[in-house]
Amino acid sequence: MRDTYVHGYGSRENERLQDQAGTLVELLHADTAYPRGSTVLEAGCGVGAQTITLAQRSPEARFTSVDISADSIAEARRRADEAGLTNVQLRQEDLFDLPFDAESFDHVFVCFVLEHLSRPVEALTVLRGLLRPSGTITVIEGDHGSAYFHPDSPAAQAAIECQVRLQAEAGGNALIGRQLYPLMVEAGFDGVRVSPRMVYADSSRPDLVDGFTRRTFTAMIEGIREPAIAAKLIEPSTFDAGVRDLHRTTESDGAFCYTFFKGVGRRPTTAP
Amino acid sequence: MRDTYVHGYGSRENERLQDQAGTLVELLHADTAYPRGSTVLEAGCGVGAQTITLAQRSPEARFTSVDISADSIAEARRRADEAGLTNVQLRQEDLFDLPFDAESFDHVFVCFVLEHLSRPVEALTVLRGLLRPSGTITVIEGDHGSAYFHPDSPAAQAAIECQVRLQAEAGGNALIGRQLYPLMVEAGFDGVRVSPRMVYADSSRPDLVDGFTRRTFTAMIEGIREPAIAAKLIEPSTFDAGVRDLHRTTESDGAFCYTFFKGVGRRPTTAP
Repeated sequence: MRDTYVHGYGSRENERLQDQAGTLVELLHADTAYPRGSTVLEAGCGVGAQTITLAQRSPEARFTSVDISADSIAEARRRADEAGLTNVQLRQEDLFDLPFDAESFDHVFVCFVLEHLSRPVEALTVLRGLLRPSGTITVIEGDHGSAYFHPDSPAAQAAIECQVRLQAEAGGNALIGRQLYPLMVEAGFDGVRVSPRMVYADSSRPDLVDGFTRRTFTAMIEGIREPAIAAKLIEPSTFDAGVRDLHRTTESDGAFCYTFFKGVGRRPTTAP
Repeated sequence: MRDTYVHGYGSRENERLQDQAGTLVELLHADTAYPRGSTVLEAGCGVGAQTITLAQRSPEARFTSVDISADSIAEARRRADEAGLTNVQLRQEDLFDLPFDAESFDHVFVCFVLEHLSRPVEALTVLRGLLRPSGTITVIEGDHGSAYFHPDSPAAQAAIECQVRLQAEAGGNALIGRQLYPLMVEAGFDGVRVSPRMVYADSSRPDLVDGFTRRTFTAMIEGIREPAIAAKLIEPSTFDAGVRDLHRTTESDGAFCYTFFKGVGRRPTTAP
C-alpha cells in the first residue's frame, strides 16, 4: 500500500508529474530527438507525461509506450488523443515480460522508472535485448540526495530522508541518479555517457521556484506525510517543520538545488 | 593556526589550488572576458591560480590583483612573470581597507574568497563602492554540501563535515555557494544572476576523476586530517575510512558530484 503513496496514480500525483514535466522539458529533453521512421520503446510511460513531449519532438518516429498500470495507460491514451498524437501506441505491459521480439527497436527511452525497481540492472538488460545492434538507450532519473537549499534545515533534510527510506522499503532507490553510469555499464551498454541536469531556483527564476521547488519537489515531500508518520520514520511536528522550511526556500532570499541525471548508451554490435 | 590548514599557503595547498584551477578553467571561466582597456580588480587572488587564466583570456584588459598575504602575492608575481603577463599589477592589500578611489574599476572579480570571510556582505559592499556605475562583479564560490557520490559513505560524509565545521570555526562558510544570490542582492547589486557549475566525474571522464575527485576534492579533505582530529571532530579511524571511501568513488564503477556557483551582478546606476 505504501507503494501507492510513493509513486501513486492519484490525481494529485498526476498533476505533480505533469507540473514536473512542464517545467523540466527543456532541461531534460532538449537533446533527445529520433529520426524519421525509427522505432522507439518507451518503457514505463506512466500517465504519459514524457510521452507527449517525446512524440511531439520526434513526429516522424514511431513510439511504443508501455506501463504496468492499466489506469496509467488509460490516462496516457486520453492525453495522447487530446494532443492529437498519431505516432504513439500505448500498451499495458510488464517491463520484465514484454511481448516484443529481440532486436525489434531502434531506440529505448526510460524516464523516472529505474528508481522504483529492485532489479534495475536486470531491467536494463531486458531492454538491451530488445534493441537492434548499435541501437541507443536513454535513461533519466532523479537523485534525492542531490537536494540542498538555503536556508538549510535539518527538519527539511529529515523529511526528504523519509522519502528516500520509503522508496527503499518499497524496493526502489531514490538516490539512483548518481549511479546511472555504473548501472548502464553493468547492463552491457557501450559508450555510456551520463550528464547531470541541475535545477537551480532562486527568486530571479520565479517560474522554476514555483514550478519546481514548490509544485514539484515540495509537493512530492508533502505527499508522503501520512506514510512517513505511519511508518514512524519521523515526528509529525518535525515533518511539518521540514515542509515549512522547504517552502521557506522559495522566498526572495532562498535558493533550491536538485539534479537529474541523463544517461545515453548503445547496444554493442556483438552481444557482450 | 587552524586557519592555515583550511586555506593555508603551504606548497601542497598551492599545488592543490593549481590542480583545481587547471581542471576547472573551462567550467568556471569560459564565459568571463573583459574588453580592451577595461580595468578589473581581482580581490583575494591568492597565489594567482585564477589570475593567470583571467589575464590570458582578456589580454587587453588591465588587472589589479590583491591579496592580504605577502607570501601569496610573491608567489603570484613569480607565476605572472613566468607566464609573461604584462597586464597584471599585484599588490598586498586588505580587502576591507583597499587604497583605491571610489568608482575606479570597471569590473570586480572574486573567486574562492567569500567562503573564508565572516562578513561576506560587507566585503561585497566595499567592492561595490569601487565599481563605476553599471560596472560588473563576478563571484565564484564552491559549496561542500553539494558533494555526493557513489558508493555513498557515512564516513566520507563525516570527513567532509569536518571541513565544513573547521571553516565555520575559522569564521568562514563552506556552504556559501548556494547563498550567492541573496548575498549579492543584499550587498546592493542589480540584475544578479547565479549559475551552478557542476562537476560530474565518472570513469568515462578520467581527467576529471583524477584532476578533481582525487587531486582536488579528496586531497583537500586529506589535508584537514590533523586539525579535524585535534579538534576532536571525528575519530581518526572514521576519518581515514572516509578518505578511503572518497578514493573508492574514483574506481571504474564510482561517481562523484560537486557544484560551484558563479554569480554576476552590476552596480546600480544610482547608489541604492
